[in-house]
Parts: sequence; structure tokens; C-alpha cells
Amino acid sequence: MSASDKWLNHVKWDEQGLVPVIAQEVGSNDVLMFAWMNRDALAKTFELGEAVYWSRSRKKLWHKGEESGHTQKVHEIRLDCDQDVVLLKVEQAGGIACHTGRHSCFFEKLEAGGEWQAVEPVLKDPESIYK
Amino acid sequence: MSASDKWLNHVKWDEQGLVPVIAQEVGSNDVLMFAWMNRDALAKTFELGEAVYWSRSRKKLWHKGEESGHTQKVHEIRLDCDQDVVLLKVEQAGGIACHTGRHSCFFEKLEAGGEWQAVEPVLKDPESIYK
Repeated sequence: MSASDKWLNHVKWDEQGLVPVIAQEVGSNDVLMFAWMNRDALAKTFELGEAVYWSRSRKKLWHKGEESGHTQKVHEIRLDCDQDVVLLKVEQAGGIACHTGRHSCFFEKLEAGGEWQAVEPVLKDPESIYK
Repeated sequence: MSASDKWLNHVKWDEQGLVPVIAQEVGSNDVLMFAWMNRDALAKTFELGEAVYWSRSRKKLWHKGEESGHTQKVHEIRLDCDQDVVLLKVEQAGGIACHTGRHSCFFEKLEAGGEWQAVEPVLKDPESIYK
């Protein structure tokens, strides 16, 4: 561990070595997505200036946008009061963060009657995103 | 389970029966805090119209603001594309979500040199909040 990695020790990694991450769009302040990072992912994110997450399903680093082109340029990295949640302020390439082709992953809204409804438009057909 | 609880089955609870929750302020769109909910917590949140979380440390339901008065009036409940993360859009009583007396819990910013810096002001002395 180099001296420059010291800041990574301030983060309280969970028992799996992960930390939850919220990606928020600079400007609109929209919450775009939620993912996880391990130590390597956070170090790479800081180094590259682009969001790199840990894919729990694929068990490997996931440079967001590597397939879709929808990378996230990182403007700010924040940590919460318990040092166990990261907030990224990002510029979203293509304006699309979600694999469904929507701006944000949080497109299902609970209506008063107790029903989930998709309330955000699909901006781009996922099939044309992931060719 | 009553018919009206059906919407709770749409949420993908983790192996501990929990789901991560992001609280975002209506209007400013600031991300205020991050917490967890179990099924009961989400049901109560919907019923009350105020945020009720699951405290993993105290292992009980936590009606946000029960001690501090800093309750969160829920305007919207959103779910992400994997149905495993909840986003609440809330009105924050007192404008203070953090137990440190700050507006948001995400007050530590990573500076270019690799140092965390508290960049948000304490609006109220925590000792006067938790008497």
C-alpha cells in the first residue's frame, strides 16, 4: 500500500470488502443509479476520473459504460457520516444511466393505490445500446 | 398478507430481508442519507407517509426523527430497475437529516490530493438535537 492509498482506509468496507455507491447527476442532481465498489474500484474511479464499480453478479470490476458507452465522468466523490456509503457526482455520457435505456434506474414509482408504475421514458432501445 | 401488501412482493429483498434506501430531498434533489428497510419498514413508510427505516445496529424499526424531530415526509417512493433499491423523495423537517447536525450525511469530500474534507456546515449542535 502506497502513502497515496491512505484515504481508502478511511472508508468502512463491509464484511465482503464492499461499499454501497450512489451516482448522482451533476446539475440536475438526479439520482441515476446505485451500485457497489470494492477498494480497487474506488481507487480506479479516483485515478481514472470515471466510475468503476464492482459487479457482484459477474464478480469483477465493471467500468461503467464499457459496453454501452454510457460512461460516468466523476466530478466529486463524497462519503457519508459513518464512512460506509459513497456518493459520486457524475456527468452521464449519453444522458442514459440505466440498462433499460432510461435516464435513471429509479423509474418505478409507487402509486397511491399501492401499484408500481414505470414513469420515465425509454430514451434509447436497449438492443441498439448493447449490440 | 392482505391484497394491499402485494406491491411489497415486487421488491427484491436481500438474504437478510433488507433493501438499501436512498433519501433525496424534494426540490433541491440533494441526497440526504442512506439507510435500510425491511418489509415492515417499507409498509409503515407507505402507511404513515413518513420514513421508517430498519436500524441494523439496534435491530429494530426506526421512525426517522423519533428522537431528533427531524422526520421525513415522503412525497414519492421509487424502485430501481432491479427492484432491489428504494429511492424516497422526502421533505426534511428542520432541514437536517444527519445526526451530526448537517443537512446531508454526505459531507465528506475527497479532495484532489486524496484527502477527505468536511465541506458542509453544522447547522445545529448535535447536543441540542439529542437532549
